[in-house]
Amino acid sequence: MVSSNHENAKESPALPKRQRGKIVGFALRLKELGKDDPRKIIHSFKVGLALTLVSLFYYFKPLYEGFGLAAMWAILTVVVVFEFSVGATLGRGLNRMLATLTAGALGIGAHRLATLSGETGEPILVALFVFIIAGIVTFLRFIPQIKARYDYGMLIFILTFCLISVSGYRDEEVIEMGFERLSSIVLGSCASVVVCTFICPVWIGVDLHNQIATNIEKLGIFLEGFGDEYFKISEDGQPINKSSSLQRYKSVLTSGSKEESMANLARWEPCHGKFRFRHPWKEYLKVGNVTRQCAFKIESLNNYLTSEIQSPPEVRNIIKGECTVISSECGKALKELASVIRKMTESSAAELHITNSKAAAEKLKSVIRSSLCKHGDYLEIIQAGAVASLLFEVVKCTEEVADAAQKLASLAHFKNAKPRVTPEKQELPSQEAVKQVSGINGAHHVITINLSQSLPGSENSSPPGLAPRIELCTLG
Amino acid sequence: MVSSNHENAKESPALPKRQRGKIVGFALRLKELGKDDPRKIIHSFKVGLALTLVSLFYYFKPLYEGFGLAAMWAILTVVVVFEFSVGATLGRGLNRMLATLTAGALGIGAHRLATLSGETGEPILVALFVFIIAGIVTFLRFIPQIKARYDYGMLIFILTFCLISVSGYRDEEVIEMGFERLSSIVLGSCASVVVCTFICPVWIGVDLHNQIATNIEKLGIFLEGFGDEYFKISEDGQPINKSSSLQRYKSVLTSGSKEESMANLARWEPCHGKFRFRHPWKEYLKVGNVTRQCAFKIESLNNYLTSEIQSPPEVRNIIKGECTVISSECGKALKELASVIRKMTESSAAELHITNSKAAAEKLKSVIRSSLCKHGDYLEIIQAGAVASLLFEVVKCTEEVADAAQKLASLAHFKNAKPRVTPEKQELPSQEAVKQVSGINGAHHVITINLSQSLPGSENSSPPGLAPRIELCTLG
Repeated sequence: MVSSNHENAKESPALPKRQRGKIVGFALRLKELGKDDPRKIIHSFKVGLALTLVSLFYYFKPLYEGFGLAAMWAILTVVVVFEFSVGATLGRGLNRMLATLTAGALGIGAHRLATLSGETGEPILVALFVFIIAGIVTFLRFIPQIKARYDYGMLIFILTFCLISVSGYRDEEVIEMGFERLSSIVLGSCASVVVCTFICPVWIGVDLHNQIATNIEKLGIFLEGFGDEYFKISEDGQPINKSSSLQRYKSVLTSGSKEESMANLARWEPCHGKFRFRHPWKEYLKVGNVTRQCAFKIESLNNYLTSEIQSPPEVRNIIKGECTVISSECGKALKELASVIRKMTESSAAELHITNSKAAAEKLKSVIRSSLCKHGDYLEIIQAGAVASLLFEVVKCTEEVADAAQKLASLAHFKNAKPRVTPEKQELPSQEAVKQVSGINGAHHVITINLSQSLPGSENSSPPGLAPRIELCTLG
Repeated sequence: MVSSNHENAKESPALPKRQRGKIVGFALRLKELGKDDPRKIIHSFKVGLALTLVSLFYYFKPLYEGFGLAAMWAILTVVVVFEFSVGATLGRGLNRMLATLTAGALGIGAHRLATLSGETGEPILVALFVFIIAGIVTFLRFIPQIKARYDYGMLIFILTFCLISVSGYRDEEVIEMGFERLSSIVLGSCASVVVCTFICPVWIGVDLHNQIATNIEKLGIFLEGFGDEYFKISEDGQPINKSSSLQRYKSVLTSGSKEESMANLARWEPCHGKFRFRHPWKEYLKVGNVTRQCAFKIESLNNYLTSEIQSPPEVRNIIKGECTVISSECGKALKELASVIRKMTESSAAELHITNSKAAAEKLKSVIRSSLCKHGDYLEIIQAGAVASLLFEVVKCTEEVADAAQKLASLAHFKNAKPRVTPEKQELPSQEAVKQVSGINGAHHVITINLSQSLPGSENSSPPGLAPRIELCTLG
């Protein structure tokens, strides 16, 4: 026993050192986390502040007597409602308030109905109501559209209904209890929403907006670098192809579900900055989807950077010029589109780059036709051919991203954006009505006069001039 | 006014019809939802049952007097803890109970400390504690590892700490309140876990297991059909390439985040069926990831089914035979691997198919070398070349899926599975020690004698014979 203690004593200096190392590592990780996104630190302070504010209701006697135990609901509400972004907080707060209101009313009704059935029938009826309502609402939560936006409200609906109808069995002050619960939940939700919105707010809509732009940019960076990387030949004749700076696009492959939930939350947010209340968040998802399609193609291109079978330099050199141009022009176009989205200001630079890449693609086709097969081992040629063929696909997808971005630009009223009109309307333009003619794909005409009247099905395409008025309405 | 009423009356028969149509549509959607996964209906009944059970605590006077208002916590607990799968319910229940216990203890401590500082210092200290604890714990929730498994616990920690320390300021029965809250939460959690586990349980581990197998199978189905689809020539010489039966693989592209959250929840589940408590869920994620890599390649292949530039039939016919063999053999291998995972019984059939596909790939290479470039327009050849080149990649990825599946098989003790040994140990096999020599990729040797001793670093690779003992331990 003594000897083992002695051994422990010997080892003990090492053990705390290891533990100290762990603690230091943990602290460093926390520091890293805060550095990566300082908004997380601010958010933590905000939660502390909101909770301290609501706790004040316990410190002041008059309020305490007014609220009673229901004040606990206010604290509970702040803890569960306060989320990182304004959209999420508003969504949860509104869900919680509305669900409490409706379920409270229904619960009181159920309680009254149960009371009418006499002493013995009452508990049976209440149990039956709880069983039926909980079952039905739980099932409704599985409907995708409801799950996306009202899942939390459904949960609170079950909760409130059960609490009100069950506790009512014991206590006749059901209505009073319902009001107490509702008022404290409104108080807690409002405190959360106010602190979340007015102190360094995190708008999830802005995050989504930036993420979509960043994703397009990541693809652009890859494509700009791809040509040089693929055709770079090391001294011993073998390509050096293990650059990791281009691999940032990988995150785009799997960002779909995150974007979808962000768009769902963004829909709760009021107008802020350049974003109106009914900003076309769904369009961002469409842009995100075509971007992802493009990323899948880039993933295939990336495989050829590290593939074991590589075309020999003499084969690569045939297609080098045009491939590099296609890739870098598509890259520039995507980066330009990213900047258009980020700055919310339309420009036609992307269009130019796409035209360049298309011209280079045509050139590449004739190069392939005339001289590719004249060289070397056919098996080695195939790899270069596959790269060329993928680049043709990339040009096509870059165009699709541009189209989606242009549609977003017109629906979200970007600066200088050209609103979209239905194809039938394109026949009508007269000299004075058409203000801007060249669209990103050269096919969009704008009829300002027509648009300021209410066109059928054009509720989303009001001209830019109307936007400030709408914003003011939402603010009021 | 009268005329407008009259108009309304005229329109009224149409309005209810439209509404009736909407209601019927909604009902049909609900029916569809229940048909797709009847477990959702059962789950809804289970939630109703658990809530009704807990509500019983209100019906019996003695229990009501014992629990008081805290019984409300029990109902609340059931509503928020009861999830679709056992893993999720257990995870939330344990999180809630542990967080309530620790935060309750800390809250009581904080309250004592605040009391010592006198009348005026108390509210200030309590507010300070709430602010600091809420801030720190909120920040900790951002750490990915904590977020994945303990996010809900962290939330409840803040909640309980605030309720205990703040309400303690008004009411001196803090400890009693803490115990009441804890016991009612334990009761609610246990009721949820018992109903969720013992009435038609939904094991998320089983779902993950099946999903991984299904995903591999989907890729297999695509590859089996791809050869026929790509080389099918319609009467006018143009390929018919718009089959949608092969498109099921698309869901694999984006299933990553779902698999990850499923694996996190599965780790909470106790042993059930063929799954032990410490089943290697992380291995499923690895299999899922290589499957997804393979799906990206299949996405590229799929593009060639609908591509505008198509190689002419005479070019395709050169590579048709070998391409079809590669594709269908890889497809069979993947389907076999899916069945191995689904049935948890190792077989070497997949290995055979991979060998076949590799042989076909070698043949295809020599066909390309000898005769591909002799035909037609070089630009048209490139498309066929790209398909061939992608098929080489698919063979490689099928092997990777097989490797990952084999590792899973040995770690999860599939029937007939060959445990993995480290490469150094492969030098040692003697005639009597080696029981099975041929692994899925022909490189794994099994040394049964060595494995039954405790090898360094082999805590995950205990031989199949030990598995039942471990399961019993977990049960006890």
